[in-house]
Amino acid sequence: MILVIKPQTTEAALEHMIQEIEHTGLHTHLSKGEEVTIVGLVGDKTKIDLTAIEANPIVEKIIPVTESYKLANKKFHPEPTTFAVKDTLIGPDTMTIMSGPCAVESEEQLLCIARAVKAQGATILRGGAYKPRTSPYSFQGLEEEGLRYMKAASQETGLATICEVTSAHAVESAYKYVDMLQIGARNMQNFELLKEVGKTGMPVLLKRGLSATIDEWLNAAEYIMSSGSSKVALCERGIRTYETATRNTLDLSAVCVLKERTHLPVIVDPSHATGVRAFVEPLSAAAIACGADGLMIEVHNDPAHALSDGPQSLDFDQFASVMEHLKPYIALSGRTLG
Amino acid sequence: MILVIKPQTTEAALEHMIQEIEHTGLHTHLSKGEEVTIVGLVGDKTKIDLTAIEANPIVEKIIPVTESYKLANKKFHPEPTTFAVKDTLIGPDTMTIMSGPCAVESEEQLLCIARAVKAQGATILRGGAYKPRTSPYSFQGLEEEGLRYMKAASQETGLATICEVTSAHAVESAYKYVDMLQIGARNMQNFELLKEVGKTGMPVLLKRGLSATIDEWLNAAEYIMSSGSSKVALCERGIRTYETATRNTLDLSAVCVLKERTHLPVIVDPSHATGVRAFVEPLSAAAIACGADGLMIEVHNDPAHALSDGPQSLDFDQFASVMEHLKPYIALSGRTLG
Amino acid sequence: MILVIKPQTTEAALEHMIQEIEHTGLHTHLSKGEEVTIVGLVGDKTKIDLTAIEANPIVEKIIPVTESYKLANKKFHPEPTTFAVKDTLIGPDTMTIMSGPCAVESEEQLLCIARAVKAQGATILRGGAYKPRTSPYSFQGLEEEGLRYMKAASQETGLATICEVTSAHAVESAYKYVDMLQIGARNMQNFELLKEVGKTGMPVLLKRGLSATIDEWLNAAEYIMSSGSSKVALCERGIRTYETATRNTLDLSAVCVLKERTHLPVIVDPSHATGVRAFVEPLSAAAIACGADGLMIEVHNDPAHALSDGPQSLDFDQFASVMEHLKPYIALSGRTLG
Amino acid sequence: MILVIKPQTTEAALEHMIQEIEHTGLHTHLSKGEEVTIVGLVGDKTKIDLTAIEANPIVEKIIPVTESYKLANKKFHPEPTTFAVKDTLIGPDTMTIMSGPCAVESEEQLLCIARAVKAQGATILRGGAYKPRTSPYSFQGLEEEGLRYMKAASQETGLATICEVTSAHAVESAYKYVDMLQIGARNMQNFELLKEVGKTGMPVLLKRGLSATIDEWLNAAEYIMSSGSSKVALCERGIRTYETATRNTLDLSAVCVLKERTHLPVIVDPSHATGVRAFVEPLSAAAIACGADGLMIEVHNDPAHALSDGPQSLDFDQFASVMEHLKPYIALSGRTLG
Repeated sequence: MILVIKPQTTEAALEHMIQEIEHTGLHTHLSKGEEVTIVGLVGDKTKIDLTAIEANPIVEKIIPVTESYKLANKKFHPEPTTFAVKDTLIGPDTMTIMSGPCAVESEEQLLCIARAVKAQGATILRGGAYKPRTSPYSFQGLEEEGLRYMKAASQETGLATICEVTSAHAVESAYKYVDMLQIGARNMQNFELLKEVGKTGMPVLLKRGLSATIDEWLNAAEYIMSSGSSKVALCERGIRTYETATRNTLDLSAVCVLKERTHLPVIVDPSHATGVRAFVEPLSAAAIACGADGLMIEVHNDPAHALSDGPQSLDFDQFASVMEHLKPYIALSGRTLG
Repeated sequence: MILVIKPQTTEAALEHMIQEIEHTGLHTHLSKGEEVTIVGLVGDKTKIDLTAIEANPIVEKIIPVTESYKLANKKFHPEPTTFAVKDTLIGPDTMTIMSGPCAVESEEQLLCIARAVKAQGATILRGGAYKPRTSPYSFQGLEEEGLRYMKAASQETGLATICEVTSAHAVESAYKYVDMLQIGARNMQNFELLKEVGKTGMPVLLKRGLSATIDEWLNAAEYIMSSGSSKVALCERGIRTYETATRNTLDLSAVCVLKERTHLPVIVDPSHATGVRAFVEPLSAAAIACGADGLMIEVHNDPAHALSDGPQSLDFDQFASVMEHLKPYIALSGRTLG
Repeated sequence: MILVIKPQTTEAALEHMIQEIEHTGLHTHLSKGEEVTIVGLVGDKTKIDLTAIEANPIVEKIIPVTESYKLANKKFHPEPTTFAVKDTLIGPDTMTIMSGPCAVESEEQLLCIARAVKAQGATILRGGAYKPRTSPYSFQGLEEEGLRYMKAASQETGLATICEVTSAHAVESAYKYVDMLQIGARNMQNFELLKEVGKTGMPVLLKRGLSATIDEWLNAAEYIMSSGSSKVALCERGIRTYETATRNTLDLSAVCVLKERTHLPVIVDPSHATGVRAFVEPLSAAAIACGADGLMIEVHNDPAHALSDGPQSLDFDQFASVMEHLKPYIALSGRTLG
Repeated sequence: MILVIKPQTTEAALEHMIQEIEHTGLHTHLSKGEEVTIVGLVGDKTKIDLTAIEANPIVEKIIPVTESYKLANKKFHPEPTTFAVKDTLIGPDTMTIMSGPCAVESEEQLLCIARAVKAQGATILRGGAYKPRTSPYSFQGLEEEGLRYMKAASQETGLATICEVTSAHAVESAYKYVDMLQIGARNMQNFELLKEVGKTGMPVLLKRGLSATIDEWLNAAEYIMSSGSSKVALCERGIRTYETATRNTLDLSAVCVLKERTHLPVIVDPSHATGVRAFVEPLSAAAIACGADGLMIEVHNDPAHALSDGPQSLDFDQFASVMEHLKPYIALSGRTLG
């Protein structure tokens, strides 16, 4: 950590602050320039009160030089992480396809979709039972009933299952029925919920917040990991910008940044990122080409009558065609499906 | 609602869709132009499945022309709302000052601050007992112990109190100790939490999400109102942009937009928006000048040793000076304190 | 175009406006709903004064349903455009690689780089002679001298050349020396400059503005095309967002959107978009995978001593390795180099 | 300037880089921590090649600690600048009102508006003769004819005049007819144009770019100042964000930041920032309350038939009412009109 000191600071004031800091056991390095004076802080910063320093009138700014996340940090865990979700692996050797409907609508619908996506190589069935919706008057999901259908579809097809959870109560239910929990974009900084899912020890898919920086995202992963689950995958699903031609702006460079900063696997969701069915294929190929470990793709038996997010869902034929198109890209990545 | 139809759509496909829509009891108005064909939908749209229409391949886009929030909508409730929080009123006739520390640290600290802010005209004491922090390793608040100190400070000074809640469990505790609940920016779309606070029927301060549109914000208010509380105030606290000179970008035009769209009171928080102590005074004056109904200002007995957000907190002398500076602006607004 | 009429508008006021509009030769379609009244406008909108309508107090908003660009619009020119730059083609059948230094530094340097990039398959040599720099005290380019080196390098190697122009004066000079003109991001809406480059009839690479919407970008292309050049390629080079881990956020979904809206070729510049050398390879592969017609990649003989943008430049070995890595992706795209 | 060194850097590599730097005459301060090693650079940084250092593989990042603008920097010029435009002063003692139509349409129109705005206290007449428009098919201004009308209106009323310039050619013409030049948002980083206006030595109003950081903005001012004009005022006119309820997001905290970083006067343009007539009054009052030195407000004799930007223009009665409303705020600011 580096403190930039304000010009015109007196020797006495500077000396006094340095003594206070060293008193806590940290070491300091003073560097006086013609234009600027800086103080480097060395040692265990958890010993000091950062805000006290920041509020010190002689400090112009504090420049952090190390990240606040540890368990998610590649520096302390250089090898990429692989973990299992039921029988499928997520990690550097596999391309994991998570597919299914935005919202679970009925047992028959889900089973029918589960069979179709399995046939094309998906290994994890996604399906929303708790739907966070902008308006309170929109369909909010089948809740526990939807979870039971997920369980049934899993038993029938052998697919692993993932479901978004939106409250401590939902975590409790989902724990009994599905294999992986999902934290949605709107809840990425719902820290109480992050702790709850962490406590289950289950695999977790953590979606990026609508305007979350990569550092905030990794700190959110740290909440889950420090609460008990080491099986966290990060899902890029588009960020909010001024551009309105797509629902969000898919940030594929985030995949590259994450591969440098963390050992956790990275999944890309082109369906939610763009909200446009026709863009799922080209952006899925792009995601594989730049290093993603998996894809989340919405598939529906009848997109024109889906209860949620129809415009971005693929029907079975379209999904089959996308998967066929992706095969050579997966081969190029040196990975195998699932 | 207006449907823009894709060029080259056949008569038959268009006719078929129109029949499906009219079958639900809605009326349609067809308008064929040389360049574009549109279908206007008239009637109760809750009867139809919007996503089914959106997914129809002949529909280029759907243009909503009415808002999805009703209880918060000025169209259906033209008069501005006033509500009481303990003995203070929030509404068009008052300028409500909510002040106090970012985080409650001890009973003595809180009482000392409560007395100081009351002396300057604040009527609501703010203080964080549950602190949502980016890193799991930062101070997370005193929780229920902090709430008890809030209650004690209220009994001693007569001030109303407000505290952020971050989980259903925190709502349950806060209900017993404070007069108004706060939803923080990170939880603006934590819909389960919105429903929980709504059910209490208590006054709620709803902060704007980091990158929430005004429409999403009003829909979040609708969640609270439709769950049982009509006493919602909206708090503008800065939005996330590319500018890094301030922590966030305070959007004062949002105050003007809200005054057109909703009857709910609007509070401005310049402390969190900018993160800079020196900007609190000028931006507080600006907020009053453009129509805000109140201000949330961080005050701390010893900002240089605050456990949270020291750099933006005012000390007692600074707060007294700000309040003195604001007096003529409050007078110009035709309002009275509290 | 659709006009949404304000509630409580009188019949007389609405009737009056409709008569005024029809008087200009346009047709209108009136659609009255329980909640909203809309007027559809059909015919040649260039006949009417849009701002007059927008300012009419009974109009709540105007919703455009067609784009304002014509020459760049895929609707009126469905086939993708191919054009030649010297001996190389840009279009749907080729993958055009534009490589070279950010800034031209000397004749030897440029020639040495030209040979190296040609050896790997690049067909267009890029090099900056006019450098728009944030600070007036930074190196601003060799200007006409740099252009002469570009010409010499072209004659020696046979490569086509591209150079950014920043003023009418620079256009005049560049016209004599290079094969393609580039408009930089900061000048995307420098309309006078767009007209100047259009008048030359030369091929133009139009970079996206830092926060330009895709519609504004296509309108900027329209300025060039309506001034005389039909050979315009669009270059995605990252947009400004709140994320600071990369210099800009590369928007690859823009490639997909452009392919739907325009027939013009699309180039991707991962070097400038990210500012990070290590991300050039994965994001180049991603760009090819999602449909780009070419890449712009910075290459320097000695990146550690480059006068401009060293951190993102590849050295010769790195460039060779990137090109090797891209080969199978180019093959998959069904294109051939250059 | 501070260099953060990568972990695992060898002693030899670090030593070598430090020697290279010191060889240029700069001094370095090495600070080795358990987690991080930093090198502080002291002395005249114009002597070294920054990009060479940035490209050095052992450097993780460079952290600048001083600004690159000098002439615009408050550190080297602590007193606020006042300058004259014809007979009016812009600076800390005055509130300068710049009003007039978005586009000059005719001599009569302009004269009529000039008289009206003068009657209410405006001292500078604004009017666009060169209109940068998103589409090439929109009205682009009367050009030199419009400038002549500006001159005539000035002679008749005594008002000073300001006009946007969009090319070197326009600067040449405007120089003869008006008193102050304006650089529009889209040209904020059109550096060639900045140099041209600087060379005239005339007063310049520099609008903030659509997504310009405050640092980029001050560097743009530095271009003008280092080219010959010291009379630069900065105009905040809204930045681009995801919010669509207003045309742009007016960033009033930028006024506060500018007052800390520069001695140049700051003008606020609520008309262009919001695009909504009704928001001009409250946001003008807010701008005055937070320290602006002036306002730019669009006024038109017949907003419903304006050729450009009708929806945000005030008519004469509305402008009179706004100015009446602003009087007490101007009085509170301790300034006088003009």
